[in-house]
Order: sequence, then structure tokens, then C-alpha cells
Amino acid sequence: MSDPIFTPALPPLAPGATVADLGEAALIARIRHRVPKSPSWVPVSIGDDAAVVEPARGTLDVVTTDTLVEGIHFHRSFVSATDLGYRALAVNLSDLAAMGASPRAALLSLVLPPPLPAADIDDLLDGLLGLAGRYDIALVGGNITRSPGPLVVGITAMGTVRRRRVLTRDSGRPDDELWVTGALGAAAAGLGWLRTGQATPGDRFIEACVSRYRRPEARVRVGTLLGRNRSVRAAVDLSDGLSDGIRQIAAASATGAVIDSEAIPIDPGARAWFEQQGADPIAAAVAGGDDYELLVSVPRAFRRRFHTIRRLTHGVPMTRIGELTRERELILRSSAGDQPLPEPWAHFGNYE
Amino acid sequence: MSDPIFTPALPPLAPGATVADLGEAALIARIRHRVPKSPSWVPVSIGDDAAVVEPARGTLDVVTTDTLVEGIHFHRSFVSATDLGYRALAVNLSDLAAMGASPRAALLSLVLPPPLPAADIDDLLDGLLGLAGRYDIALVGGNITRSPGPLVVGITAMGTVRRRRVLTRDSGRPDDELWVTGALGAAAAGLGWLRTGQATPGDRFIEACVSRYRRPEARVRVGTLLGRNRSVRAAVDLSDGLSDGIRQIAAASATGAVIDSEAIPIDPGARAWFEQQGADPIAAAVAGGDDYELLVSVPRAFRRRFHTIRRLTHGVPMTRIGELTRERELILRSSAGDQPLPEPWAHFGNYE
Repeated sequence: MSDPIFTPALPPLAPGATVADLGEAALIARIRHRVPKSPSWVPVSIGDDAAVVEPARGTLDVVTTDTLVEGIHFHRSFVSATDLGYRALAVNLSDLAAMGASPRAALLSLVLPPPLPAADIDDLLDGLLGLAGRYDIALVGGNITRSPGPLVVGITAMGTVRRRRVLTRDSGRPDDELWVTGALGAAAAGLGWLRTGQATPGDRFIEACVSRYRRPEARVRVGTLLGRNRSVRAAVDLSDGLSDGIRQIAAASATGAVIDSEAIPIDPGARAWFEQQGADPIAAAVAGGDDYELLVSVPRAFRRRFHTIRRLTHGVPMTRIGELTRERELILRSSAGDQPLPEPWAHFGNYE
Repeated sequence: MSDPIFTPALPPLAPGATVADLGEAALIARIRHRVPKSPSWVPVSIGDDAAVVEPARGTLDVVTTDTLVEGIHFHRSFVSATDLGYRALAVNLSDLAAMGASPRAALLSLVLPPPLPAADIDDLLDGLLGLAGRYDIALVGGNITRSPGPLVVGITAMGTVRRRRVLTRDSGRPDDELWVTGALGAAAAGLGWLRTGQATPGDRFIEACVSRYRRPEARVRVGTLLGRNRSVRAAVDLSDGLSDGIRQIAAASATGAVIDSEAIPIDPGARAWFEQQGADPIAAAVAGGDDYELLVSVPRAFRRRFHTIRRLTHGVPMTRIGELTRERELILRSSAGDQPLPEPWAHFGNYE
């Protein structure tokens, strides 16, 4: 980020002060106070009608927006305000990573219930700005409004990618290998554990799953690296699960896919949790969302370059799980035989 | 927009179909179906993880986000879904206009109560795309999620402005004249009338006020024209009222202001309505929001150019209402004497 500059200390909050006690102007002033000095490519930042950002030279703008709604995407009892701020930015960074784009700037939209403690906004900013700082992302604007119901946190994230380096869903071809980053199922297991209402996990594997749910790791560097080096063709993030991701690439690319069930990398803690619940770990990991790993397609001609790049991803594992096919079916293959790829969870209609 | 292309007819909605009946994927498919073919500077539009936009040559990106929340910014009984789509985009275009920027692209974020009629989303798109089409704005992406409570419509709008043509709040100087576009108070009067719960205004002046409330006119061409020609210095839109706008410019520019109470242009229908309600029309027009006119500061050196440009604004009236001052007070001056500028309505803490 930019050089630290002298700023007077934030005025302390009165104990128990709510968002309604402070009001919009004071909340915006607190946020401005917390945001580091704008980099030189942001001539107008928070506090005007809109933000002004100088485009990066020779690149395209990539822009995405994602919103977290209380009661739908999170419960305040499961996710702290700090985690929520982190998570709201992370899910957007994951979308940029899936385009091969480097993040640059973000806008924050808050719809706040008036009784919300004002300290929660400080905490939310802690989580958001902590993650933003790791990638030199400037928070350049946003808006605050009252909510008659749930807390809603929206982020618009902007990034850059070079022309002909954009990773799109529709560029997969038959015979492309499908690779996935990291391991799946941890976030779903973590959420499952939180829903049991227990106080603290006694188990460090479950602890890790809960932490993955609360603070998803967007694959920012991997996405940028893969895009920049033309080592993969199609890409999608697994926000809605592996089954959904495969469907998205296959549908957009007009292909089918065969997935090797035994190859799917499942988080060990998640596997233990699902087995303990009497659930099939593979089915749960394939259908469950919130993992924010990347699914990419690697054409034959890119394989050598892909393996070179894979060594540069600093310990992020990548696993080959199948391939795209000319036949339009989506198949989950195991030693027991082929079956249709399970349907993803329908987030909108049938949640809970 | 782009050339019309052949697209098959939208599949008809089942009578009474709700947002939950369709689900997220079908809603996104309906929206994609409605959006015109992307212009060549949008290589990736709706349907991928993020949108890709080619920056305009030699300009800066301007970006803003604004959210309309049911029960706070609108009631569904007062505002149709079509008006809501129009309004959600218009309030963002107003922010771009206040920066002197030309709009170019938008993202749409919908947080939808599951029982909402799916036809309302078609109507919302009608309103939004109708306004977008007038200015060749491309709807390039967004997201849809479920709401456990209110309907929430968020827009992120992106535009462009040339370097050194940005209009900012903090660039006012003492002795700059203050000018305002259009006439004030109509939206506040229209909302006041809607709150009476009457079926249809018998009066065409009130009709016009209601229409101003439902479909605010963002001063897109005026803002762009004023910015492009360096004919004004500071600018702000009056989304939160004239009193708020004057405060914003004066605070950011470290000046005071004297406003000539009798010069403030008040919509004739609004004046009649406020008088009928026993309210002071000037106080009501100064404090009331939702007008989306522009307030600009004109330095002495720019006056000749400003008057030339003013003739090009195609009938949008502009009225001189006062000036910025070295003394930091904010004064409303009338033949009866000086008084402090009334406080704006505090939108967050004290609404209703």
C-alpha cells in the first residue's frame, strides 16, 4: 500500500454506541480515517460522488460484484464482523482470480441495521483492509444505508488483465484436462460443524475447516500466474461447489466432462467430518460450496507450460481430476462404475 | 447500443411465478436474454465470474455504487418495478454526472425476496435497460441472491472522464458563484403526495412531482458538458438535498457559503404542494432530497465559458443561487435577513 502517513487517532466509540447513534456521516468519516492514503493512481478516493481510478497501462479492466446477506450467506453467530469484512472481499477476489486478473481496487456497500454496534463496522474494516493490504488493493469508495432487516455487505472489486490473457468459462475444449487447486469440502464441513451449535471444536482438523469457512482463501496469486502465462484455458471459481463449476465450464464451452471420483482432493478434516455424519465425503465435497478454489482446463498444447507454472504456486496443491469430453454428458467415474455428476445445491430456491 | 440481433422470444412466465420458482440460474438467463449484444469494448459480459471492459483511450475510470433498499429508499406501493430499475441506475448516473464523467457500463446486484413475482424482474430490467439505452450504457454483470427481508437493488456504474476535467467537491474557492440545475422540491413533494395514500393525483403539477420522485432525471449530459469544457470547478449532486450539497462543497473546499433564498429555483407544483401543507416551500426544497440536480461552483475566470456552455444544455435551466465565501459560515440570506442554512434531513439515524 502507500506510505504510512500521520493521522490522528480514531475518536473512541462511546460504549454500546450503535450505527444509528453515529449516523451515516460519522460512519463514513471513521472509514475514511482507517483507509490508508490513496496510491497515486487513485486521484479521487472515498468522500466524493464517485471514485476516480487511472487505468493500468495496456490492460483491460475486470470488474465483479458479490453481496453477502445475513441469514442467507452468513449468520452473525457463526461469523465475526472481522471475518465478514475479510470474507466479503475474498469472495470477490476469487472471481477476479478466476478471470486471471490481478485485483486493484474495491468499493464497499453497507446496508446496516440501526441497532448494529458501531464497533462492528471498525471490526469489519479490520478484516477487509487486512486482506486488501496483502494485495495492495485500494478501497476507493462505496455507500452506507440503513437496513430495515438483515445486514448486507456488498463489494465491487476491480482488477486488470492483459488482453489475450483473460480466462473465460467458455474456452474449454474436448480433451482439455481439468485441474483443481487446494482441497475441497473444508468450508462445507466447517459450516456443518458451526450448525451443531457447539462452543469450540476440540479437534484441530475441524478447527481448520471452520477457519476455512470463515476466512476463505481466494487463489489470487495462482489465478494471476495462470492467466499471465497462458498455461490454462478455461477457469471458474468453486464458490458454488465443484459440481456447479464443472457444469459452468462444460455448458459455456459446449463440452461434457468425465471426473475421476477417486482423484478429487478432499480436505482430511472434512472427510473425517462427513464420515462421522454418515455422509459420503465425495458427494458432499462435490456438491458443497464456499470453497473458493479454482477449476481450470489445460489443453494438451499448454501442459508443459502448466507444469512449469505449477511449481511457482508456492505450495498451493493442484490436482488433475478429469477432462472435458466431446460427448455432452457429465460423468463421475469411480471403480464402482460411472454415474451422472451429482446436481449442485440449488442456492436460491431450496436453501436450508 | 449495439446492432439489434436475432434472439428467440423470452420464454413466457407461468402465471404467478415467483423468483423462488425460477431460481438464480433461470433469472440470470432471463436477464442475459434481455441485455443487448455487448459492444466491442466489452470482451466478456454477463455470465462469467467477472466482466471485462476495455478502458476508453486517454481517460480515467470513474466508478460509483449506490443501493436502494425497500422500506428505506422506496416502498413497492409507491414505486413500480419498472420505476425502481430506472431509479436504481439514475441515482448512480447522477453521481457520475457530478464528477463530469460520461457513463459507460453498469453492474446490477439484486437481493430478492423469494415470493417476489418473477415478472417484476422483467419490469425492473425494462426500466433499467430503457435508461441504459438512452446513454449507450452496457449492463456487463452483477449478481443475484436471496433476501430474507427487503428487496435491495444495487448498481455499480462506471464512466470515463479526461484527466484535469474531473469535477470534485473540494475544488471550490471563495467568490466562486454557486449555480444549480433545474428546479428543486418536486421529488419531495411527489413523495409527500404518495404518502397521503390517494389513488391518482387530480392535478397535473402534482402528477409531475410524483413522476420526478419515481423517475429522477440524472443530469448526465449537463455534467459531461460542464466537465469536458472546464466551465465549472466543484460539483456535487443533490441526492440528499441542497442544504447537504452546499455543506459538502463548503466543507471539502474549506469555505463558507451565502445562499440567496429568493433565488432558489423551486418547482411550481412543489411550491403549491408545500404551501397547501402549511410548510415553507423554501425550507422544504432546501432540506428535501431526491432531486438529483447538480450544484456547481463557477470561478470568476470561468464565467464567460460557463455562460457559453449553459446555452448548450438543451433547455436545462441553470440558476445562480449564491456564492462561496472565505468566512466559514453557511448563510441563507433573504429580504427578512440572514439565517443559518437549515440542517439537511439526517437520512440514517432519523428517517421517518
